[in-house]
Amino acid sequence: MLIADPFAEGGIGSFAVRLRSGETSSEAATAAFLERIGVLDARLGAFEFVAAEGALAAARAIDALLAAGTDLGPLMGVPVAIKDIIAVDGMPTTNGSNLDTASLAGDEGSFVKALRRAGCVILGKAETVEFALGGTGINHSRGTPWNPADAKVHRIPGGSSSGPGVAVAAGLCGFAVGSDTGGSVRLPASFCGVFGHKTSPGLWPIDGVFPLCPTLDTLGPLTRSAQDAALIHAALAGTAAAEPASLDGIRIGRPGGLFLEDLDADVASCFDAALGKLEQAGAEIVEVEVPEAAERSSFFPVLLPADCIVTLGRDRFLAERGRMDPVVAARAGAGLDTDATAVLQALRRHQELIRLTQERFADIDVWVAPTTPIVARPVASFADIGKGLALTGLATRNTQPANMFGMCAASLPIHQLGSQLPVGLQLMMPGGEDEALLALACAVETVVGRPKSPDLTGFAR
Amino acid sequence: MLIADPFAEGGIGSFAVRLRSGETSSEAATAAFLERIGVLDARLGAFEFVAAEGALAAARAIDALLAAGTDLGPLMGVPVAIKDIIAVDGMPTTNGSNLDTASLAGDEGSFVKALRRAGCVILGKAETVEFALGGTGINHSRGTPWNPADAKVHRIPGGSSSGPGVAVAAGLCGFAVGSDTGGSVRLPASFCGVFGHKTSPGLWPIDGVFPLCPTLDTLGPLTRSAQDAALIHAALAGTAAAEPASLDGIRIGRPGGLFLEDLDADVASCFDAALGKLEQAGAEIVEVEVPEAAERSSFFPVLLPADCIVTLGRDRFLAERGRMDPVVAARAGAGLDTDATAVLQALRRHQELIRLTQERFADIDVWVAPTTPIVARPVASFADIGKGLALTGLATRNTQPANMFGMCAASLPIHQLGSQLPVGLQLMMPGGEDEALLALACAVETVVGRPKSPDLTGFAR
Repeated sequence: MLIADPFAEGGIGSFAVRLRSGETSSEAATAAFLERIGVLDARLGAFEFVAAEGALAAARAIDALLAAGTDLGPLMGVPVAIKDIIAVDGMPTTNGSNLDTASLAGDEGSFVKALRRAGCVILGKAETVEFALGGTGINHSRGTPWNPADAKVHRIPGGSSSGPGVAVAAGLCGFAVGSDTGGSVRLPASFCGVFGHKTSPGLWPIDGVFPLCPTLDTLGPLTRSAQDAALIHAALAGTAAAEPASLDGIRIGRPGGLFLEDLDADVASCFDAALGKLEQAGAEIVEVEVPEAAERSSFFPVLLPADCIVTLGRDRFLAERGRMDPVVAARAGAGLDTDATAVLQALRRHQELIRLTQERFADIDVWVAPTTPIVARPVASFADIGKGLALTGLATRNTQPANMFGMCAASLPIHQLGSQLPVGLQLMMPGGEDEALLALACAVETVVGRPKSPDLTGFAR
Repeated sequence: MLIADPFAEGGIGSFAVRLRSGETSSEAATAAFLERIGVLDARLGAFEFVAAEGALAAARAIDALLAAGTDLGPLMGVPVAIKDIIAVDGMPTTNGSNLDTASLAGDEGSFVKALRRAGCVILGKAETVEFALGGTGINHSRGTPWNPADAKVHRIPGGSSSGPGVAVAAGLCGFAVGSDTGGSVRLPASFCGVFGHKTSPGLWPIDGVFPLCPTLDTLGPLTRSAQDAALIHAALAGTAAAEPASLDGIRIGRPGGLFLEDLDADVASCFDAALGKLEQAGAEIVEVEVPEAAERSSFFPVLLPADCIVTLGRDRFLAERGRMDPVVAARAGAGLDTDATAVLQALRRHQELIRLTQERFADIDVWVAPTTPIVARPVASFADIGKGLALTGLATRNTQPANMFGMCAASLPIHQLGSQLPVGLQLMMPGGEDEALLALACAVETVVGRPKSPDLTGFAR
């Protein structure tokens, strides 16, 4: 009999109330997550490392601190999983690789320290695509986590924050911390059916994180709900949690063109149903043109591989690429021959696109799109290299523009509107608007509802 | 008989008083500068373009506006020269080149528009090194302005803002606007004996400016005094002009090593004399170590040539480099083969160095160094390519670090302490500290005094 997810009902906010009423404890929640990890994670493969004893000891200390009258705020005692490209004191960092690259993430950074100061209990390190370079979640080096939505077929969890997505969807932690350079928080959120917040560049410092592409790298939580994400944001920013925005009269831009091509039928129907509900709630849907989104197909291949080579070092890469995931190695290898002028041109264009995007929001509150055009495909669909590459390119097509435009964004589950497999609704706002984005996401969540938790019995051992 | 420089006595502040008392007018000042340009600039060569009629018409309109009761503030009616890589409506932009590259600077940008709103009268465009790529001021394409300090020998004016430096030193404008990517405001200030303020990155927008290297490009005024620069800064920032700081008890860091090697004797003696006066005024001189300054010799050759090729376009450069200044063409040409990873590595290092520099100012108020180790050499000294390159590298050695470290900086004349040819004292503070830098520079100016204006009779025709 699988012990219940202690955050299933009411998420972080409810846990905070029950913690302070004495109804539960951080130790009890931590123990429950550890038990669930023990039962489920052998098959799910969300965790790279579990710090069972350390987490329990930290949870007990947090409980004692609260009992002694010190309240660290709304995240106190919450057990958290950290993507394994983020350094955590006392835990290994694999960066999803068999190469020894722990030092490249550096020492534990400001964001993890901020979580500790807020009273979070770190359960362990969650799986990632090797060097965070990929959107499907497939990792030939250290294993591909299972998407909890289907216990029979091994489906992609989305990536690169694959473990964080799976851990939240399967109820193995209070929330998880991922990173997003081209969609790596939003894609596992969308494919696994949870909420993901890709923060604005610069909102949270990225020291202590493997640098995939410092220009674009951002940290972001994966949570059970928009409400949880808003709570985390407020707790770490030191502000009051945003009230859900009113949808009445807001102007929602729906970019046409590329964002709406080649949608899986379930994606299209859930997206249309979600927009219908937003209209019913008083929002106005406005067609907008974002032709520059197509530039992502040249922007990312110029910037990411070369930046990855910089982080790994040319000599190390040449010497050890045979021990890397072959898909990641092939992609990074393109960075060996990239021309400097192409990179500088891309960086200038990035600044122009940030300005252009800010201007486009003069009379629009938010852009919406399906987070990804497809539902989670079987891992086996990627075995054929050509087909796999095409699917991979499709998977990241709708998320990469927000990074290229310097935006903040979120993915919110909408498969409860008519799909077996998870579907995500992407919300995008200009950089710096995280608080407004989360307030709006909370409002959307109340209108579209939340999905049921997946049936995990098939994963239990 | 040469008409007097209308700003020689008391600079911008005194002009502002006399303008409002009716003692002078913008038209009179403009006419005086135009007459001086007519007499002196045939030999000095500071101006690329003079908008005589337009400037007089604008000056008359400004006078009428003030008479009608509209006061635009302390820069109202001040005649200004603009470096010719900065677009000005109705004036040509050569970027110091015989190639047609006016469109690369774009339309008139925010900074020039801010000058117009402040009531400045734009006299014309001042000479620049071709594409602002060089520190000596030598321009084989469109001519090298004469350094006003020596009417007998053609000495380098410093660059790339050569025309702005010469125009201010010769009293041909109220102040001039240059740009500084590796020293291009401070070097002409130092070699010509005027004040130059290299602003912090991001302080003033660089739209409408030829992009040499957008990561490092900054705008900055060249003025008769620190006081004038502080006044300009306050007027454009919309703040009150900073009071001169007190030197009593401030901690002045003197970086050793590279900054103090190979100094011309006059540079060394003026620098020592200046520091002696600052100590007498109560400042404490502290030895500091800045070993990373040496990285400038790899940082700039990686970044600037490739960025210049991006701006020019590879095809245009390959087709037209034969019509460029051969030194500039050779330098830019290195950017054709730069590796992307080298550029990305340099950009990451730049961010690290910015952070490191901020930390180093925890217990230090300012760094000082000679702006350049040498006094203005004859242009003929650069005829030998090998010797010329070595001298050029020496000229920029002390200014490039501040750009690489993301700092603001200034050059203040100190040859009145014992040199025939101008010598500059460089003040450096972390990025964002422009107001504090200028307040300190004003205090230093009161202690070291101001140099006499150069004798220009040898230049008059």
